[in-house]
Amino acid sequence: MADNKKMVEAITSMDENFAQWYTDVVKKAELASYSGVRGCMIVRPYGTALWENIRNDLDSRFKALGHENIMMPMFIPESLLQREKDHVEGFAPEVAWVTHGGEEKLQERLCVRPTSETVFCEHYADIIHSYRDLPKLYNQWCSVVRWEKTTRPFLRTMEFYWQEGHTMHETAEEALEETERMLNVYADFCEQSLAIPVVKGRKTDKEKFAGAEATYTIEAMMHDGKALQSGTSHYFGDGFARAFDIQFTDRANQQQYPHQTSWGMSTRIIGAIIMTHGDDNGLVLPPAVAPIQLVILPIAQHKPGVLDKAHELADRLSAVARVKVDDSDNSAGWKFAEYEMKGVPLRLEIGPRDIENNQCVLVRRDNREKTVVSLDELETKIPELLQAVHDGLYQKALARREGMTFTVTNMEDMVKTADEQPGLIKAMWCGDEACEMKLKEVAGVTSRCMPFEQEQIADTCVCCGKPAKTMVVWGKAY
Amino acid sequence: MADNKKMVEAITSMDENFAQWYTDVVKKAELASYSGVRGCMIVRPYGTALWENIRNDLDSRFKALGHENIMMPMFIPESLLQREKDHVEGFAPEVAWVTHGGEEKLQERLCVRPTSETVFCEHYADIIHSYRDLPKLYNQWCSVVRWEKTTRPFLRTMEFYWQEGHTMHETAEEALEETERMLNVYADFCEQSLAIPVVKGRKTDKEKFAGAEATYTIEAMMHDGKALQSGTSHYFGDGFARAFDIQFTDRANQQQYPHQTSWGMSTRIIGAIIMTHGDDNGLVLPPAVAPIQLVILPIAQHKPGVLDKAHELADRLSAVARVKVDDSDNSAGWKFAEYEMKGVPLRLEIGPRDIENNQCVLVRRDNREKTVVSLDELETKIPELLQAVHDGLYQKALARREGMTFTVTNMEDMVKTADEQPGLIKAMWCGDEACEMKLKEVAGVTSRCMPFEQEQIADTCVCCGKPAKTMVVWGKAY
Repeated sequence: MADNKKMVEAITSMDENFAQWYTDVVKKAELASYSGVRGCMIVRPYGTALWENIRNDLDSRFKALGHENIMMPMFIPESLLQREKDHVEGFAPEVAWVTHGGEEKLQERLCVRPTSETVFCEHYADIIHSYRDLPKLYNQWCSVVRWEKTTRPFLRTMEFYWQEGHTMHETAEEALEETERMLNVYADFCEQSLAIPVVKGRKTDKEKFAGAEATYTIEAMMHDGKALQSGTSHYFGDGFARAFDIQFTDRANQQQYPHQTSWGMSTRIIGAIIMTHGDDNGLVLPPAVAPIQLVILPIAQHKPGVLDKAHELADRLSAVARVKVDDSDNSAGWKFAEYEMKGVPLRLEIGPRDIENNQCVLVRRDNREKTVVSLDELETKIPELLQAVHDGLYQKALARREGMTFTVTNMEDMVKTADEQPGLIKAMWCGDEACEMKLKEVAGVTSRCMPFEQEQIADTCVCCGKPAKTMVVWGKAY
Repeated sequence: MADNKKMVEAITSMDENFAQWYTDVVKKAELASYSGVRGCMIVRPYGTALWENIRNDLDSRFKALGHENIMMPMFIPESLLQREKDHVEGFAPEVAWVTHGGEEKLQERLCVRPTSETVFCEHYADIIHSYRDLPKLYNQWCSVVRWEKTTRPFLRTMEFYWQEGHTMHETAEEALEETERMLNVYADFCEQSLAIPVVKGRKTDKEKFAGAEATYTIEAMMHDGKALQSGTSHYFGDGFARAFDIQFTDRANQQQYPHQTSWGMSTRIIGAIIMTHGDDNGLVLPPAVAPIQLVILPIAQHKPGVLDKAHELADRLSAVARVKVDDSDNSAGWKFAEYEMKGVPLRLEIGPRDIENNQCVLVRRDNREKTVVSLDELETKIPELLQAVHDGLYQKALARREGMTFTVTNMEDMVKTADEQPGLIKAMWCGDEACEMKLKEVAGVTSRCMPFEQEQIADTCVCCGKPAKTMVVWGKAY
């Protein structure tokens, strides 16, 4: 266990310094490292494999609902970005500008896409003419660039990876349905595949996307009580359609503007996985997206038959899980610590005595629970244990969120709670942006969302005391 | 058939104007369209689905050989690009430069990656220390940008999509083996999945990649006799390792420079598919990568039971093929033409009389051969016919290439053949770049490759008459 100890001590504990713990996990689990360009990360093979599993899971959910992938140019001419007023105001200050191609100075600057509403709209103007061309349900997987001042791997990087869905519909109702449908896809994905409970709700006007009529969000709570916006879905009405002159002939032979949505989830979600499930031994991965679900560690592997048995099991079990055997000459203690650091949900230990007894030991990453299992039962036992890890992670995260969500009805409690208790705070709001600003100023919290599941906590705004319109979840956020 | 006719007439015939035919197919098959940025294409959903199938096929071939995916930043600082002399000379004239982030002028320009050797090397310098860290077998899927003067969808675009493998090895031998191994992966993929026969060989020094010691290539012949470089694999020796100071401690405890390869295949390959298999009715897709392998067209679909049967068959057959039912109210003739244009390998027609007789009609896209098949036999018949389409496409392309490959031994024949016969020309070469330049000047051909399968056509160079070193395949190329 000496090696194991050494490895574990190499990362900062969460309680001591949560930010440093996060950085340590990203590095030691080999998820990402910094590149030579400020704020741009290298997503290392283990992080990339995780992202590919996330992508494939989400992609099949999108396709099952009829969405098609498309690949749009990464460059947007400055004049195109400026077409929708609110949108350009929101994004122009944070884009990267291409001014030269080879030796030649460009006549018009091109920005590297920070998001692609404008290029989608330009294309939609070309291809939407009749109600028969609707709906258009497009999505793209790509990277985008935003010139951020301070960056942290996955949470906020200049270049990040995401998918951006962009859809066009005949009616406002249909577009609103799509906006909600895709938010539910994100929420289901977080809960079913990532074991992350989320609060679904709507953003206030202050927090909504530049150019949107409404932004829906899912908010997750991290280990330190801070919120992380994990996916958003926007309803645009026909604002962009008017700005880009996208019109179609409707069923009554009238010219109409279509109604639009967009929705995105990014590599930020990897930050959410780390900070929801991780612990002082490193990463803890939800089984559905873990690059390795089961690591097989041969014990006393120099003894005859052990390695053969380990590889035989790996072949057999690859039908029920993503399996890796570590037959390197590192010590067992080093390997235990290594795969704990990498968050592999299940570890299978097999040594000479186990083989004699036709059994092995399975150890869960989330709670280190050990089970001795007959080799004949592995095909049923492993999926069961993976499910148990998923359920355990979800319940633990949910219990944490519930234990760290507070309710306040007056400003004094708001300030005191925000100051003393990490977590989320439910409180009523009058709908006035001035109160949002004041809460930010005096309590240091922002409105995370107006949850779809409303509770009538009080009749008056927590800030100004005027009649309340809605319950808001407030908090500090990444 | 009136609709059908109208549709078919909408594209230029190959013989009349091959370039226009190509552009028509790209547009009418809805593979891609131009965007507002010069030279950047929008890869439309059908083209994207095709690229995704290509990507997934190649990706599983790479992973089966132990390669891992990674995601590197899209920006390269100017100083990093300049680190390897030949490389920067080759690429600097054709990169896009980012000079501003938001309002701020950057202290150092960043180029949008034209290829990623430099950023991989910077990362390798960080993570390679011992022979235990080798080999590193990394690959990434991304888009890259080259500031091209003239562009054509898929064949040459400013932004294009590709994969770039970058590997590091203990020894030169291992790296050379990898270079050849990956060329063989590309060749196998082209032949087994795309039904495109290729010539494998090595590029002359004049044609090799900027910074490489050796470049291997697969060259395919298009319908018009021109060659298309379809994939390349480069051996770098330790040149980049020295320029980037990547060193490791070898098994004898000595400091060594590792040996490097890179290899890439891009969306160009979609151009190769179009120009190898397409015909005057449009695209013809190889079954292995076709987004739709079987389209089911209900005949007289207003009659009772027809649509139900069509959908029932689609459900059943989705186990053996990628299936689509077109139950739109377009005419049968329009649908025939539409799916021919889109190159769907097999069409299944089913109408009321077929249902009565428990049969349907299957029509191959490549030769329009019709087969009446019992509905009970579809699960075996469809895979057989898809294989037959693949084999038919491959044989046809191979026969065309063989019929259009010529052998010459003197300059007069070279010039005459290059002038009069579209196709490839085999001829001996002394190894002198001056002869390559002269052949380009007087015959208009470039060296496509020095094939691995050599033939001793003559003893003297076709150009200068001095002793020949190698047989070269010459031709005009995309």
